Amino acid sequence: MSNTYHDETVKIFSLNGNLPLAEKIASAFGKKLGKSVVKTFADGEISINIEESVRGIHTYIIQATNAPVNNSYMELLIMIDAMKRASAKTINVVLPYYAYSRQDRTARPHEPISAKLIANMLVEAGATRVLTLDLHTVQVQGFFDIPVDNLFTMPLFAHYYKEKGLQGDDCVVVSPKNSGVQRTRSLAEYLNSTLAIVDQDESLEEGYVIGEVAGKTCILVDDMLNTGKTFATAARLLMEAGAKEVYACASHALLSPPAKEVLEAAQIVDICVTDSCLTDEDRQPSNLTYISCSSLMGEAMKRIHENTPMSPLFHLEEKSYL
Amino acid sequence: MSNTYHDETVKIFSLNGNLPLAEKIASAFGKKLGKSVVKTFADGEISINIEESVRGIHTYIIQATNAPVNNSYMELLIMIDAMKRASAKTINVVLPYYAYSRQDRTARPHEPISAKLIANMLVEAGATRVLTLDLHTVQVQGFFDIPVDNLFTMPLFAHYYKEKGLQGDDCVVVSPKNSGVQRTRSLAEYLNSTLAIVDQDESLEEGYVIGEVAGKTCILVDDMLNTGKTFATAARLLMEAGAKEVYACASHALLSPPAKEVLEAAQIVDICVTDSCLTDEDRQPSNLTYISCSSLMGEAMKRIHENTPMSPLFHLEEKSYL
Amino acid sequence: MSNTYHDETVKIFSLNGNLPLAEKIASAFGKKLGKSVVKTFADGEISINIEESVRGIHTYIIQATNAPVNNSYMELLIMIDAMKRASAKTINVVLPYYAYSRQDRTARPHEPISAKLIANMLVEAGATRVLTLDLHTVQVQGFFDIPVDNLFTMPLFAHYYKEKGLQGDDCVVVSPKNSGVQRTRSLAEYLNSTLAIVDQDESLEEGYVIGEVAGKTCILVDDMLNTGKTFATAARLLMEAGAKEVYACASHALLSPPAKEVLEAAQIVDICVTDSCLTDEDRQPSNLTYISCSSLMGEAMKRIHENTPMSPLFHLEEKSYL
Amino acid sequence: MSNTYHDETVKIFSLNGNLPLAEKIASAFGKKLGKSVVKTFADGEISINIEESVRGIHTYIIQATNAPVNNSYMELLIMIDAMKRASAKTINVVLPYYAYSRQDRTARPHEPISAKLIANMLVEAGATRVLTLDLHTVQVQGFFDIPVDNLFTMPLFAHYYKEKGLQGDDCVVVSPKNSGVQRTRSLAEYLNSTLAIVDQDESLEEGYVIGEVAGKTCILVDDMLNTGKTFATAARLLMEAGAKEVYACASHALLSPPAKEVLEAAQIVDICVTDSCLTDEDRQPSNLTYISCSSLMGEAMKRIHENTPMSPLFHLEEKSYL
Amino acid sequence: MSNTYHDETVKIFSLNGNLPLAEKIASAFGKKLGKSVVKTFADGEISINIEESVRGIHTYIIQATNAPVNNSYMELLIMIDAMKRASAKTINVVLPYYAYSRQDRTARPHEPISAKLIANMLVEAGATRVLTLDLHTVQVQGFFDIPVDNLFTMPLFAHYYKEKGLQGDDCVVVSPKNSGVQRTRSLAEYLNSTLAIVDQDESLEEGYVIGEVAGKTCILVDDMLNTGKTFATAARLLMEAGAKEVYACASHALLSPPAKEVLEAAQIVDICVTDSCLTDEDRQPSNLTYISCSSLMGEAMKRIHENTPMSPLFHLEEKSYL
Amino acid sequence: MSNTYHDETVKIFSLNGNLPLAEKIASAFGKKLGKSVVKTFADGEISINIEESVRGIHTYIIQATNAPVNNSYMELLIMIDAMKRASAKTINVVLPYYAYSRQDRTARPHEPISAKLIANMLVEAGATRVLTLDLHTVQVQGFFDIPVDNLFTMPLFAHYYKEKGLQGDDCVVVSPKNSGVQRTRSLAEYLNSTLAIVDQDESLEEGYVIGEVAGKTCILVDDMLNTGKTFATAARLLMEAGAKEVYACASHALLSPPAKEVLEAAQIVDICVTDSCLTDEDRQPSNLTYISCSSLMGEAMKRIHENTPMSPLFHLEEKSYL
Repeated sequence: MSNTYHDETVKIFSLNGNLPLAEKIASAFGKKLGKSVVKTFADGEISINIEESVRGIHTYIIQATNAPVNNSYMELLIMIDAMKRASAKTINVVLPYYAYSRQDRTARPHEPISAKLIANMLVEAGATRVLTLDLHTVQVQGFFDIPVDNLFTMPLFAHYYKEKGLQGDDCVVVSPKNSGVQRTRSLAEYLNSTLAIVDQDESLEEGYVIGEVAGKTCILVDDMLNTGKTFATAARLLMEAGAKEVYACASHALLSPPAKEVLEAAQIVDICVTDSCLTDEDRQPSNLTYISCSSLMGEAMKRIHENTPMSPLFHLEEKSYL
Repeated sequence: MSNTYHDETVKIFSLNGNLPLAEKIASAFGKKLGKSVVKTFADGEISINIEESVRGIHTYIIQATNAPVNNSYMELLIMIDAMKRASAKTINVVLPYYAYSRQDRTARPHEPISAKLIANMLVEAGATRVLTLDLHTVQVQGFFDIPVDNLFTMPLFAHYYKEKGLQGDDCVVVSPKNSGVQRTRSLAEYLNSTLAIVDQDESLEEGYVIGEVAGKTCILVDDMLNTGKTFATAARLLMEAGAKEVYACASHALLSPPAKEVLEAAQIVDICVTDSCLTDEDRQPSNLTYISCSSLMGEAMKRIHENTPMSPLFHLEEKSYL
Repeated sequence: MSNTYHDETVKIFSLNGNLPLAEKIASAFGKKLGKSVVKTFADGEISINIEESVRGIHTYIIQATNAPVNNSYMELLIMIDAMKRASAKTINVVLPYYAYSRQDRTARPHEPISAKLIANMLVEAGATRVLTLDLHTVQVQGFFDIPVDNLFTMPLFAHYYKEKGLQGDDCVVVSPKNSGVQRTRSLAEYLNSTLAIVDQDESLEEGYVIGEVAGKTCILVDDMLNTGKTFATAARLLMEAGAKEVYACASHALLSPPAKEVLEAAQIVDICVTDSCLTDEDRQPSNLTYISCSSLMGEAMKRIHENTPMSPLFHLEEKSYL
Repeated sequence: MSNTYHDETVKIFSLNGNLPLAEKIASAFGKKLGKSVVKTFADGEISINIEESVRGIHTYIIQATNAPVNNSYMELLIMIDAMKRASAKTINVVLPYYAYSRQDRTARPHEPISAKLIANMLVEAGATRVLTLDLHTVQVQGFFDIPVDNLFTMPLFAHYYKEKGLQGDDCVVVSPKNSGVQRTRSLAEYLNSTLAIVDQDESLEEGYVIGEVAGKTCILVDDMLNTGKTFATAARLLMEAGAKEVYACASHALLSPPAKEVLEAAQIVDICVTDSCLTDEDRQPSNLTYISCSSLMGEAMKRIHENTPMSPLFHLEEKSYL
Repeated sequence: MSNTYHDETVKIFSLNGNLPLAEKIASAFGKKLGKSVVKTFADGEISINIEESVRGIHTYIIQATNAPVNNSYMELLIMIDAMKRASAKTINVVLPYYAYSRQDRTARPHEPISAKLIANMLVEAGATRVLTLDLHTVQVQGFFDIPVDNLFTMPLFAHYYKEKGLQGDDCVVVSPKNSGVQRTRSLAEYLNSTLAIVDQDESLEEGYVIGEVAGKTCILVDDMLNTGKTFATAARLLMEAGAKEVYACASHALLSPPAKEVLEAAQIVDICVTDSCLTDEDRQPSNLTYISCSSLMGEAMKRIHENTPMSPLFHLEEKSYL
Repeated sequence: MSNTYHDETVKIFSLNGNLPLAEKIASAFGKKLGKSVVKTFADGEISINIEESVRGIHTYIIQATNAPVNNSYMELLIMIDAMKRASAKTINVVLPYYAYSRQDRTARPHEPISAKLIANMLVEAGATRVLTLDLHTVQVQGFFDIPVDNLFTMPLFAHYYKEKGLQGDDCVVVSPKNSGVQRTRSLAEYLNSTLAIVDQDESLEEGYVIGEVAGKTCILVDDMLNTGKTFATAARLLMEAGAKEVYACASHALLSPPAKEVLEAAQIVDICVTDSCLTDEDRQPSNLTYISCSSLMGEAMKRIHENTPMSPLFHLEEKSYL
């Protein structure tokens, strides 16, 4: 896109989490990324210098907190502190991927709620607003008392599958585990398809399919694609249950090893993911397709800046933000 | 129970939400309820006077925030304020039922997150710890930065159904909607049964059953039993799908009209609920069975007071807390 | 008034406490009320949806917290939370009547200070400014660390009585109890009259008149008119002390039963009140006269929005805000 | 008193506001004052060193904030900071006199609420509890969200006048101005006397007496005795209205010049004050009588430390705390 | 300067710390000082009234907190509270001299960190930004989480000495004690001179010179000039070590007695100070030269208000801000 | 040491920063380390589980935040969150090395103050007290409002050099740069030696020696030993200035490459460091000597737990804590 956004009261910065995505988002917004330097000293400490004035400016800091997770967050916190002390008017934190979001409850006694800790740290450092993409659980919004806009990826995936002609009764949208069913349900509604679940979890050697999949094209849906094992097992169980073929989509492609091997070996035709996370090319399986979340995020940032409603972005499967 | 707890540094108080339950909890703990007076003036304002000294005392305030919901919360907030100003050492809020817990995210733009608001109000008023029972979503724990212990009801229900001989392959544990599947899964594990889901929601005139239920005894599981329509529709769909018979259990029996009529007309053999919420007898359907959460809650309070681990309470289906 | 205020950066909302007054205030300001929906579920929980965008908007929420008091406050707190999360620029809470304001100190040991609790709740929820009308004690302003503007009703009443020719030496302005004397003194100064006090309180079966009232027209002054007993007793004592006739005025007409019967039976010619509180018509005694505080409040809101001084509103007995 | 309080977990410190009173309070408690050094540098900065360990100790800091007011408060704030950093377990601030308490509302636009500012400063510095004596308005308690115990002096004065035989119908208790009437009322109840008011304020050259005083012994009551003009004018008006004789009492004897001359010239038999404030002897008029608040305050501190009820201290006119 | 700054959204106020400087700063900015009245009552309490509206205004409060130190701070805190309650949009505190800044660490156990206490008080009262001049240690910036701009005086002194021809190898810049060496180093860099240190401290009767000074013109550098003893001793030791002559400069001229006598007797040709602190003329030694920091501070305030970079002010030895 | 500390109310935990040191500290205290598990997932997220109850326990978390710096801090923050939610009574954070402490001011415009950010994060996460060792600048204590005890290493080094007979006039203690002079001064006082400074910094290709070193044994002193270049350059300049021999000591041995090569090549007889930081053996130069800070830190923790004074630890060069 070659549009330029003529408003000097807003500046967009990126840290090192996912610079290619940040550049696309800024371009979608119509701005160049602001200048800042992140150095790492010999002892591992990070040093940040913002190389242009942000006094009185509405700032947006884009940081996908993918690996190295802890460095990404520390970069972000230090950047927020610098913005605050340099008198930025607002500090809008843009998190295409919110690491630690699965640690959103005390699963066992004596455990932290790290997703809340992250929220507390961002606010204490000085963030005044947060923009996220497909949070693991939407309740994480309530971990903040500053405004949070959580964008959804399902419209993007719905558009993708409709283009392929995958919709209606021949398809079934499948949750590969017994949580996150509502994300699956959302895609099923967009595609006018039914729902199924693969019940598998850590303690089960084997899982089983709940619902009708025989003869159908299955689309597995998850938010995070980490080692690929959940998808691989689910795909095998679906094929054993008579599925015609299996597709899969996931919002955040972490692709931790051995994801490449696992997914290439899995009975999955095509795995669609967004570019919210940055990974080396040699960790990407051959059956992976990237679609970009940059237009969606750039548009959301523009709506935040212009105080226009966010709601159209939740119904955009036919729109141009793809 | 006739045990008496000899420790003068702890006092238990109850407000008007569910006094019978509070008395049972206090009795399970081994204490009488402390003296406090809640008056309502002609103009509707509440006035509270604590009629014994709480200086330096570990206080527990029991309030089930069932209807009238807003009065219940205001009573609670005023009581916490009074405790704080009267120099209570700790203020432990015991919430057998946490109203507004379903409003845990912004479902549509411009919506509040009332469950977080409640958390913020309790903490701002002066609560130092919270004890809850089967929160609608466990992420609500993360709405607090003070310690929260959330007790589970599934062990109580597991015990109940095992006593009836309902477990294993002849049974299937069913979620009556596409959320809350993990609560269902938890009971299924206790009973060594499989899982099914009834996919119905507000926008669907009709729902459908996902999973195998033909010839089986179905146990519907939910956290809140409000108007009974969700259970009634699910039961009908299960019977249509060939189920042998349908049982149901729910943690919090709100029984808002027309629950009595709806549930008595539903094809449900028996509906098991806890006494976390107080309702008039004439709102209770004839196929309802109450089990008490008072021993469980009293024991949890004792463990909090004595700084002993809470974990045994999460595995107690065989225990004496029933 | 048919003026229209052409400034799209400000929106006025009302909750259910006193909708007729809110409409008058909005009209005085020159705006229509914004769209929002307050629903009450079967179980008593309130649900709020703001049906227009408030991103970056200066919002004013009007809520008279008259009965049902606790519902009114909970509505207000939930609305503030929604505004905050929907990114309102400022959240100005307009309270024509501030319930719980009499609970402004610990009268006896172990009591709450509910008026401070309310202040804390409003601020914690997200209020950025408060506008009140004739607070029970002006010290309640200090319960907040956000700006509070407290408007006075005495100029309105002074205008009312001057129109009737009640002023000067033939009149005496009377406090019906031994507190709140300064409110009485303020009206006395406007009317160039002297002061008297009726010393009665809860512990006294009988009261007595302090000061000269024989042969004079007495004007009783109070902030809240609840059951009417204080006025009725004071009027009887004044007539017994030789008063010529008794008028009365009060800022906030709660009119809790049996106010209608008590006041109609009392020896009071006319009772003037503002419309800060909403009551059913069948609770209003026949000797009651309403004057509106809407122009005063609307004008104050306009001055807040335009950053012009509030001070003229404190000297407005001759003005057009009546 | 020669009692010694054997509890090493509590230490009492005094600053320079009113050291003689602090020593009496400590003696009433049964402790010696802890060692601390307050130095003033050549440039006016204060330096404080606590010369004994307070790690884990319940500390009480006594500071009457009489003149030099601002130095007294800064001493206190610095001492609280030192206590906090030195790991005191609790920091109980004892304020026999709370300067700035009259600035408890915005009397005119653009004014501070300095009494709230003081409260905020004390809490922010680290105070965990406050003990005061006869606050100018009791609503100041609500300026804090930490526990505040406000002691009353009226029982002390009631005891003093009863000893003199001044009570019942021959006496009338008089408020020298139209505010603070409830303090007057409280003493009147203790003495079984009636009430009168002298209506005078800044804008009135002359005042007038409201109520019956002819032939009676009048007792003027106020909280602060500053320049003495309020008492002197009131006494003159009372004598002109036929009073038999005039006594006066005030909780806090600031005695700012020209109080000595004004009060000695006034028609007041005897002025009874507490020793809450420290003044030079040459500023004390000859008709002044001091009674001590030290037993009352020492006893209150002991009750705070031992978590026993404070309520007996509010009814102590016959007791030994005098 | 006769420029006038035409922007009605900004107002500059001064308190009593250093009114002549405030007038010069305001003039440098191009504004007249706003109207406010600070009264001191007979009992020593301060009362402040802002005599013009500050609703929605960016306010700058200038207060040099020189003696009487504690009064100066209390004036400032009360003024900030008044500004906050009067709805100022921002409250920018301008501190040409930051008293208590030497108490920036716990030098011995049980000591306060008064410089942090001051920071906490300013922020809690409502300050939204701080502008300082040559803080004793730059780490004090980190005591705040609001933006702090700390201006340096070394460019001013560098300009002064260059004008005199004092620079290069014939000069040596000397720290009169073993701390604050970096301030000395900064001036040495501006003047292209080397560095020396006089090692003296409280526990040393005598000190000694570290570095080469024989035959050179020495320029002593310190931030605060209090009693003058540090400079006098250092000058003597330098002359004993063969220095050709001694100059001295200091940012903040407190000049506490006996500074005049000490400095006039010292072997120092000329002592250059800024006008950050206000002292009586009879406390100023004859070898003292004042240069003004007003242009520098006025320019900084303008840059803050206009959101332009502050960095040029750190390199201004050739500029017109002198 | 084989002593065992019999107090069940205290537990000591260590994270992965410097486990060998933590074990020594715990042993010095007389306790075994508590059980906790830190896992790192495939995607880099850390998961922590505390494997024993900490309800009501005084906990000490030891974490040296050496490389990987950001992981170390994130581990620590997550652990604090877990402790808080698991109801630890106090959370004492023990930081033998406080990374980011050099970023304690905004050296240039638009920079963060990362040392303050770290302080804010620790407190927001839930730390209730901090224990540090030789902070880079002591003002960092003031970045906290919770108690901070900062231990000094100079007594340990003084003991080390006295044992070697290095003290008095034959020695000179040298600061290798123009900051941190007071640390050098402290060691000089212990050893009764004089002081010198090597003035070098980033912008200088060459430095120079200030003070007399010819013929003397020089002891270089610094807090952090990172790449070794500062020491190596200073040693060369000292030898060029005629020094007899050069020793060096530093509190925190980060030893970032190429420290080993640089230091082995430098003209330094022996470099003494503490074990506050953990490094691989192959990064340690052959002329390095470790002394342990574990007895000092263990003793400090014991004094914190027992509420006994910390002051003896500041004068311990002759003591047994070495």
